[in-house]
Amino acid sequence: MPKTTFKASAHLQEGVQVIARSRNFEFIIDEPQSLGGTDTGMNPVEAVLAALGACQAIVARVYAKKFDIQFDDLWVEVEGDLDTDGFMNISDVRRGYSEIRYNIHIATDASREQVSKFIEFIENTCPVGDTIANPVSLKLNEIVIERLNLKA
Amino acid sequence: MPKTTFKASAHLQEGVQVIARSRNFEFIIDEPQSLGGTDTGMNPVEAVLAALGACQAIVARVYAKKFDIQFDDLWVEVEGDLDTDGFMNISDVRRGYSEIRYNIHIATDASREQVSKFIEFIENTCPVGDTIANPVSLKLNEIVIERLNLKA
Repeated sequence: MPKTTFKASAHLQEGVQVIARSRNFEFIIDEPQSLGGTDTGMNPVEAVLAALGACQAIVARVYAKKFDIQFDDLWVEVEGDLDTDGFMNISDVRRGYSEIRYNIHIATDASREQVSKFIEFIENTCPVGDTIANPVSLKLNEIVIERLNLKA
Repeated sequence: MPKTTFKASAHLQEGVQVIARSRNFEFIIDEPQSLGGTDTGMNPVEAVLAALGACQAIVARVYAKKFDIQFDDLWVEVEGDLDTDGFMNISDVRRGYSEIRYNIHIATDASREQVSKFIEFIENTCPVGDTIANPVSLKLNEIVIERLNLKA
């Protein structure tokens, strides 16, 4: 399946709680109380970091054999700097992340040099990493105004 | 909390299944069988689309009053084009999304003109949208090699 169109949806609930869906899967997105939410799930910018780490972990699994690396455990810690004054519309700073950093933990007997080459490949091959690091064309396709059914 | 550092982690499980966590929240990320997974959750690139839609929905909720817009329902459909030959490392195409499109559904009695201005603001204010549309500095902070505790 080379050229693929992936899909997801987000349905606003009470307050800023959202049900995020893709295919038959869903998870709750919300904001902490400090950002006006009810704290029932991670928020959208945290979900982006989680997706980045997951993407790197999956690339690691898929390409470990090619790099002749065996590992017993692997996890990624991701953090990103974001100035919430942008979202609050009280400053001209960029709205999104300015920088995202990650630590990759791997339980292996492989040499550091071998692991470094492997990780470099992972960084270059991860689709979420490329999506975040480089510009992507975002387009509003359609605004659908659902007229309310007024009761008679 | 203007300058904030958000955090998340991703822990690889069996195969390409990952537990994605942020604060005390988690969700499962996996791949469909067609991409080598066991299909127990959305995949990382779907999670990114979900986070984008959720972010737009949250911005809508937060700024509706400022734009004097009342709505009874709002949801976002997001889709993105990605050539999986990049991830499979069999082509030089970019690894991530080339284009992402969305439809915004809103149940409101407001005029189309008023809604259009509101949506334009949402697009410009959404932190995940900015993170995807514009370059972000991604940095490998540290590779931590967890040496295995060999049994005696």
